[in-house]
Amino acid sequence: MASTKPAVSPLAPKSYPDIPPLDGLRLATGAVGIRYKERTDVMLALLDKGTKVAGVFTLSKCASAPVEWCRDRLKSGKARALVVNSGNANAFTGKTGAKAAAFTAALASTAAGINAKDVFLASTGVIGEPLDATKFEGQFEKLVASAAPGGFLDAAKAIMTTDTFPKVAVAKVLIDTHEVTIVGMAKGAGMIAPDMATMLSFVFTDAPIGADALQVLLEKGVDTSFNAITVDGDTSTSDTLLLFATGAAAARGVPKIDDASDRRLKHFKTGLESVLLDLAHQVVKDGEGARKFVKITVEGAVSKSSAKTIARSIANSPLVKTAIAGEDANWGRIVMAVGKAGEPADRDRLAIWFGDIRVAYKGMRDPTYDEAKVSALMQAQEIDIRVELDLGKGKASVWTCDLTKEYVAINGDYRS
Amino acid sequence: MASTKPAVSPLAPKSYPDIPPLDGLRLATGAVGIRYKERTDVMLALLDKGTKVAGVFTLSKCASAPVEWCRDRLKSGKARALVVNSGNANAFTGKTGAKAAAFTAALASTAAGINAKDVFLASTGVIGEPLDATKFEGQFEKLVASAAPGGFLDAAKAIMTTDTFPKVAVAKVLIDTHEVTIVGMAKGAGMIAPDMATMLSFVFTDAPIGADALQVLLEKGVDTSFNAITVDGDTSTSDTLLLFATGAAAARGVPKIDDASDRRLKHFKTGLESVLLDLAHQVVKDGEGARKFVKITVEGAVSKSSAKTIARSIANSPLVKTAIAGEDANWGRIVMAVGKAGEPADRDRLAIWFGDIRVAYKGMRDPTYDEAKVSALMQAQEIDIRVELDLGKGKASVWTCDLTKEYVAINGDYRS
Repeated sequence: MASTKPAVSPLAPKSYPDIPPLDGLRLATGAVGIRYKERTDVMLALLDKGTKVAGVFTLSKCASAPVEWCRDRLKSGKARALVVNSGNANAFTGKTGAKAAAFTAALASTAAGINAKDVFLASTGVIGEPLDATKFEGQFEKLVASAAPGGFLDAAKAIMTTDTFPKVAVAKVLIDTHEVTIVGMAKGAGMIAPDMATMLSFVFTDAPIGADALQVLLEKGVDTSFNAITVDGDTSTSDTLLLFATGAAAARGVPKIDDASDRRLKHFKTGLESVLLDLAHQVVKDGEGARKFVKITVEGAVSKSSAKTIARSIANSPLVKTAIAGEDANWGRIVMAVGKAGEPADRDRLAIWFGDIRVAYKGMRDPTYDEAKVSALMQAQEIDIRVELDLGKGKASVWTCDLTKEYVAINGDYRS
Repeated sequence: MASTKPAVSPLAPKSYPDIPPLDGLRLATGAVGIRYKERTDVMLALLDKGTKVAGVFTLSKCASAPVEWCRDRLKSGKARALVVNSGNANAFTGKTGAKAAAFTAALASTAAGINAKDVFLASTGVIGEPLDATKFEGQFEKLVASAAPGGFLDAAKAIMTTDTFPKVAVAKVLIDTHEVTIVGMAKGAGMIAPDMATMLSFVFTDAPIGADALQVLLEKGVDTSFNAITVDGDTSTSDTLLLFATGAAAARGVPKIDDASDRRLKHFKTGLESVLLDLAHQVVKDGEGARKFVKITVEGAVSKSSAKTIARSIANSPLVKTAIAGEDANWGRIVMAVGKAGEPADRDRLAIWFGDIRVAYKGMRDPTYDEAKVSALMQAQEIDIRVELDLGKGKASVWTCDLTKEYVAINGDYRS
């Protein structure tokens, strides 16, 4: 953690949604003292029998021990518990790390009376320090005893590291004529350029959906949410996004669905995507030192993936991000970032908008644009930048934040 | 330019080498008032008849008008003049920009009595503002009249933008038993992640070497110098590196050489590479806000290019660069940057050194390392980081600087 606790991000939501208890899910939190003092640092989620699970993880070649553990566990598609600790990522901890993960799962499974293979794990915090899993001894019995429906915001607080606010989201949608609920939490503020996942995010639903279908829905939803955000272009070794379906809504008559293309999932897909996007946006809004929330849209690219690569190039450019911090509509740096992306682009067909003001057109400054109006627009907390390439139909949006002195301060302080 | 003139970089050289006049080269500088006040902003190099030229340029898809001009001119391999202005990059200026470039070359050629096709151009400064080339009218006559041997440091000063010091380098080497000279200048401080070139650099020699051979030598030399540095991962639309050989040393008996593999070029190659590396290092040492000069070496990769990709991933990581600014030997962030590079790496075979101290070994913290010693080492101005992947024989080094609050301040100030 930074030596001084940062104030809450100016982009934090003004209020939190009321997250209802979810059938089939019980939560507990505790203060185990892994690294932090006087705060909760472990979260236990107990899931009813029959719970299905899907997941996406970091593509880092140096993934953490819990990521490797979860990848193995995911093969069965079944889950009964999730244990998350903050303060130590159990990453780059070698064989000791794998042992610490297995030991943690064994302790939790014994306390909960379930199979250790059905326990999912996530750890976040310092990399390269051994995780002392003996700190969990005797703790899971207390957590299992106190686990109860609700308490979602407290759970989201227990998994925070450099986050300045907890991140939760909810959607209620219909399957046939029955209402089901999707609730999600996330943590992350720096090292945010998820590659097939985010830092840590856990989404739960009571809908009875099979594991394979869940996996398809999750991967699709991630593409335009957690995989479309960046704070600093750095990808964590611990990125983990898990989606659990307790299936408890089956007791209320909700049909069991095993095929992701089932048309009855139409509203569920929309709801899941809205929860994922909401959480992803909150991660950007808590970006270390962030004062501006920036949406970069690239249109007219030769393909969707080309559009996304160019949007990412803009969103990750330190020169673009510092200009936004300085409230400078420096569209020349947008041109630079388009040019360096390595994707097809024709300088003389390019147009660039800040908000609804076109600042560049056909390879040069738009002669009609009024710098005073653009400057006024740049003072807002939310900035929309749009690039039209005029080459094809590919379109993508990426969200990011500005790069401020506070980012440097937070990450230059000793060992965050 | 930043609103307040930054102090000279703490990493600036303590003294400048004495750059001798080069046979076949005359230089002049002037203050045309393109953007800056009370300083020189145009440099003219006049080259004797018979001068050969090679060049490498930005791979940006949005290259500047002067880059496009030079690419066309390079086909002949001949050069008689170089005109460089600072203050305006003539980039993203559409057809107007191409006209401004052609007009500038025409004015210079008339004044010098040479063919406009033999005039090379480079511009650096603001992107997206039209370059008013009429400011050059009547100026080249004065510049041609004042052009003289020597004055290299003054020329290097005229091409500066956000640079805090001029960058020059020199080498004297033997071809057969005859001495030839290589002199070079560069400018650049931000937007530095050259892709086949740097911001702007001009190297001159009196050696009589053919254009094709020069091109081969230049491309080889760039690979381990200007293409192995990064300040912010941003690539300029104006990156230009030109190598001119006046051939004037032939009058002293130096043999004319047209084949890059000619063994008589052995010392010349070494000298050229040392000039390019020296200039490239100076660009990093003038990196905006830089206080630390950092060498990242990756060894044991599956190939040389894989090693370079991983080294670049480390060198461009904001989290690594802010940790170095904070004098924190945060090797966990090195692991993260190795992991996100997308290249083969085995977490459990990785070793990491800061200077001569091994901090991580076989996938975990080196149990023998003394944090106090590493912390002391991190206080130095020059930091060496070495990663051993233990997979193959690929090796590469990349140089970068730290990421400080001053970088954000310089680039967040209005329209640098």
